[in-house]
Amino acid sequence: MEKMRLIIGNKNYSSWSLRPWLAMKVAGLDFDEEIIPLFEPNTKTKLLTYSPVGTVPVLMDGELTVSDSLAILEYIAEKYPEARLLPQNPSDRAKLRSICCEMHSGFFPMRGTLHMNMRKKIPLKIPVDVQANVDRIKNLWQTCRLENASKGPFLFGHFTIADAMYAPVVSRFKTYGIDLGDICEEYSRTILNLPEMQAWYQDALKETWIIKQAEIN
Amino acid sequence: MEKMRLIIGNKNYSSWSLRPWLAMKVAGLDFDEEIIPLFEPNTKTKLLTYSPVGTVPVLMDGELTVSDSLAILEYIAEKYPEARLLPQNPSDRAKLRSICCEMHSGFFPMRGTLHMNMRKKIPLKIPVDVQANVDRIKNLWQTCRLENASKGPFLFGHFTIADAMYAPVVSRFKTYGIDLGDICEEYSRTILNLPEMQAWYQDALKETWIIKQAEIN
Repeated sequence: MEKMRLIIGNKNYSSWSLRPWLAMKVAGLDFDEEIIPLFEPNTKTKLLTYSPVGTVPVLMDGELTVSDSLAILEYIAEKYPEARLLPQNPSDRAKLRSICCEMHSGFFPMRGTLHMNMRKKIPLKIPVDVQANVDRIKNLWQTCRLENASKGPFLFGHFTIADAMYAPVVSRFKTYGIDLGDICEEYSRTILNLPEMQAWYQDALKETWIIKQAEIN
Repeated sequence: MEKMRLIIGNKNYSSWSLRPWLAMKVAGLDFDEEIIPLFEPNTKTKLLTYSPVGTVPVLMDGELTVSDSLAILEYIAEKYPEARLLPQNPSDRAKLRSICCEMHSGFFPMRGTLHMNMRKKIPLKIPVDVQANVDRIKNLWQTCRLENASKGPFLFGHFTIADAMYAPVVSRFKTYGIDLGDICEEYSRTILNLPEMQAWYQDALKETWIIKQAEIN
């Protein structure tokens, strides 16, 4: 059978790409990856050959094209139920989807300021609107961790698509030196210590592309 | 058993609220609704009593709180499989989630210009970036309709959460007199003629709140 293929952006910068990549690796799936460097003159043209949306990530599985990180995560969770990328309990799944959707459609001040940038350490005075996003994310991580502490170290106990959705935020908070408090600090370490997350970091650090729009100095 | 309760914004303006409301009505579910008028001095305070996200819609089902339109749609689709709010076929579900997610996280020029405003007819010269969104949406509606024409008049044949996600766009296109072409025009009529959509329109037209930020004259 043909291997699945995941089209992603630069590993140093592409937060949306990290999400499905990480979940697919943690799930132990065998897939090919292809990097399309973002913000280059021919980026859009290249991306449009994969999907009419023209964004990364895109998953190709045989005849099927799945665009969007969250759609890919849901597809993988459904196709490989043994990977337990969604919680068993319907209420937990609903809570998980609430926070995944909150990430998917929100936190614009944070996303527009604290760009994912794995090779840097940038201490930053955090603007008020970004801080409100940071506080909300810390609050939701804490709520999940307190509810599921007995089940394991991830947001819903074992690793789920919610951890994939928030993994780039863990990296952003590390880059910009965000003060996390004990519970979130521990959760952050859980994500950063995942061998799959470390593998992505290693690849990111080897990249030499610079995206000016994502650099704060 | 306690009835489900859906917290929504003004029916004339709140595109996110329409999505789960419409799907829940088409699915024949019995639920209470509560309107929190948006953009009033105490709106945020009120919303925060329902969910820490502070946005509409919010679904309360017993002890469970589900925030975000797409998370609510997925929850309802799972809880009431007989309503067939998701397609049977895994590939179709993946395609559906791709376009639902594209709506959920994108089309900002369109969303920021063509505000949902059911009581108005506003012929508008469409800016270039908005037109690109309009073209992409027409393209995805057409693709779905051509693929599923034999199965029924909705995006995936029968009514699904994808139709709920795009129902506010149908209304926006009507308000701003967007030229649709035959296939999209027919799809638009299918949505507008749904008795549940007409019921929402009737309620919207009775509202007297004016949200200045959403009015283009």
